[in-house]
Amino acid sequence: MAGYNLEAIEAAPLKEDVDIVIPTIRSLDFLEQWRPFLKHYHLIIVQDGDPSINIRVPEGYDYELYNRNDINRILGPRANCISYKDGGCRCFGFMVSKKKYIYTIDDDCFVAKDPSGKEINVIAQHIKNLETPSTPHYFNTLYDPFRDGTDFVRGYPFSLREGVPTAISHGLWLNIPDYDAPTQLVKPRERNIRYVDAVMTIPKGVLYPMCGMNLAFNRELIGPAMYFGLMGEGQPISRYDDMWAGWAAKVVCDHLGFGVKTGLPYVWHSKASNPFVNLKKEHKGLHWQEEMVPFFQNLRLSKESDTAAKCYLELSKMTKEKLTEVDPYFEKLADAMVAWIEAWEELNPAVDGKDVKAK
Amino acid sequence: MAGYNLEAIEAAPLKEDVDIVIPTIRSLDFLEQWRPFLKHYHLIIVQDGDPSINIRVPEGYDYELYNRNDINRILGPRANCISYKDGGCRCFGFMVSKKKYIYTIDDDCFVAKDPSGKEINVIAQHIKNLETPSTPHYFNTLYDPFRDGTDFVRGYPFSLREGVPTAISHGLWLNIPDYDAPTQLVKPRERNIRYVDAVMTIPKGVLYPMCGMNLAFNRELIGPAMYFGLMGEGQPISRYDDMWAGWAAKVVCDHLGFGVKTGLPYVWHSKASNPFVNLKKEHKGLHWQEEMVPFFQNLRLSKESDTAAKCYLELSKMTKEKLTEVDPYFEKLADAMVAWIEAWEELNPAVDGKDVKAK
Repeated sequence: MAGYNLEAIEAAPLKEDVDIVIPTIRSLDFLEQWRPFLKHYHLIIVQDGDPSINIRVPEGYDYELYNRNDINRILGPRANCISYKDGGCRCFGFMVSKKKYIYTIDDDCFVAKDPSGKEINVIAQHIKNLETPSTPHYFNTLYDPFRDGTDFVRGYPFSLREGVPTAISHGLWLNIPDYDAPTQLVKPRERNIRYVDAVMTIPKGVLYPMCGMNLAFNRELIGPAMYFGLMGEGQPISRYDDMWAGWAAKVVCDHLGFGVKTGLPYVWHSKASNPFVNLKKEHKGLHWQEEMVPFFQNLRLSKESDTAAKCYLELSKMTKEKLTEVDPYFEKLADAMVAWIEAWEELNPAVDGKDVKAK
Repeated sequence: MAGYNLEAIEAAPLKEDVDIVIPTIRSLDFLEQWRPFLKHYHLIIVQDGDPSINIRVPEGYDYELYNRNDINRILGPRANCISYKDGGCRCFGFMVSKKKYIYTIDDDCFVAKDPSGKEINVIAQHIKNLETPSTPHYFNTLYDPFRDGTDFVRGYPFSLREGVPTAISHGLWLNIPDYDAPTQLVKPRERNIRYVDAVMTIPKGVLYPMCGMNLAFNRELIGPAMYFGLMGEGQPISRYDDMWAGWAAKVVCDHLGFGVKTGLPYVWHSKASNPFVNLKKEHKGLHWQEEMVPFFQNLRLSKESDTAAKCYLELSKMTKEKLTEVDPYFEKLADAMVAWIEAWEELNPAVDGKDVKAK
């Protein structure tokens, strides 16, 4: 690996630069197990559902907590761009953070172990992924060339070895795999027991299913495109919040010249959600993804869209134009995308002023 | 993994359908160690360099051996499309084979072990890779969905889950990584000790550096595009034989709707070649790859090119048109590409007749 001090990154976990965003409807006892790795970090807890419920946070953690009343108060009429009764509400936390990096994790995810039995430091690995470049223009067969003990292989053009800034680090899950309801129903006992010791860049022009369970990103580069959509109560669709964000953020990254990595680190995903409930939540998404994926695969953003926020506004127009014929819901979604950007810019005037431009 | 009987594939190693092609300049004692895995297969040995040298093949192996005199006799005036004093001569073996699958391996590669200490059956893994579909249109974050214990994750469009036929299986190397001479010089002691337990499809539209050390492919689908170029003695370039074949075969696979996988199986690569000798062989390639890669990234084959052979002839025209301005060598290469296809069609009239068309 060429010129990056990975040990220094590991020793200094950038605690001043990272917020941890957790959407939840219950007490956060799962944080007890995470204490060795997360205790230094500031938490932003987004309480979903009934705001009168009291969420217990383990002692010693530094946190701020927002319930639906807080979201309504802070965003006013734009609050309805934040999903209710859906994990997608987490993106409110992305918006109120002032940090460079966000790590977001689900409350049914626990510390995983690598094959040697060592507990995995998720933050350290995500920060390594984000602080080293991505290589979206050409595939390196030995995976992430910026990792210790590896490099670019023979036949890798030198002009591409500098890479591009990394905007997203998508971590994986041992135990319960992230399957849709039909696959859950067909394979109720399948468990992911395979630890794949790799990080890789998802190439430019290629889409992937981004899961929000164990996800980190650079807010300054891509924050405004990390909108988790309009899902849950009052909407015809659920469980596609992270997918929508992932497709949108990937096309924006591709357009702006930023990279997306997937692979390490793993978390231990403890329990499968109910496949019958999921089927009800997902069924429109399972159908609509056949239209949404080609929509994102084929769209081209304009040169004028040279920040994530501008890209996202252009994307909202395209959503209205192209996807409303699939279902009127997408018109509502497109409006919510605009409200999201307006709210983002109101809450992040400084970040907006120094919004990172395309290379 | 959906509907493929991987155990049956493992139990029946398709010995009637696989030829093993080995280019060499020395006796093949390395085959002793491979006996448990390769003894059932027919070998095609392509002897490089001085044809008067006697190549020793371990007893019990079924093989045919071709030296330079044989190549000249069989191909006549077209024999000069086969490289001399370069591993690229191996492609002569692809041409004279009559089997569906080719596995090609270098004679400094040995049996590797997986992390449990079990010796890796390279053929079984390559055949699994080739007999199950590829998924080039969308990235699956849990890697090859056709492997036991895994599947397509949430957010993977159902219309893409059937995949496409796999044409190429690119295996990796433990111990000595496949670095170019400058990287070898900078990192003489770097060893690949990381076993990444994954197979993945290289997405459509993405190029990769294909290494010929541990490589399998479906001759019927992609054979005519697996030309290892004009390298070695009498040519200005060497050590780019597999790269050329990899770039060309990838764009042909993308065009015809076939898939390319990389990852498992590993071999143990025993010794690094001399970096100073390599630098001399490579130096033009290190420079030219900055032109060759964009050439392959940007070209578009026509609809009329609906077989690998037709694609390759179109590619030879483009090579002449676009790369001759980089160096006159590419005109010679383009002519050799035509000679290669003519020779292929002469030696494979039946295969040509049932040449697999694009979907």
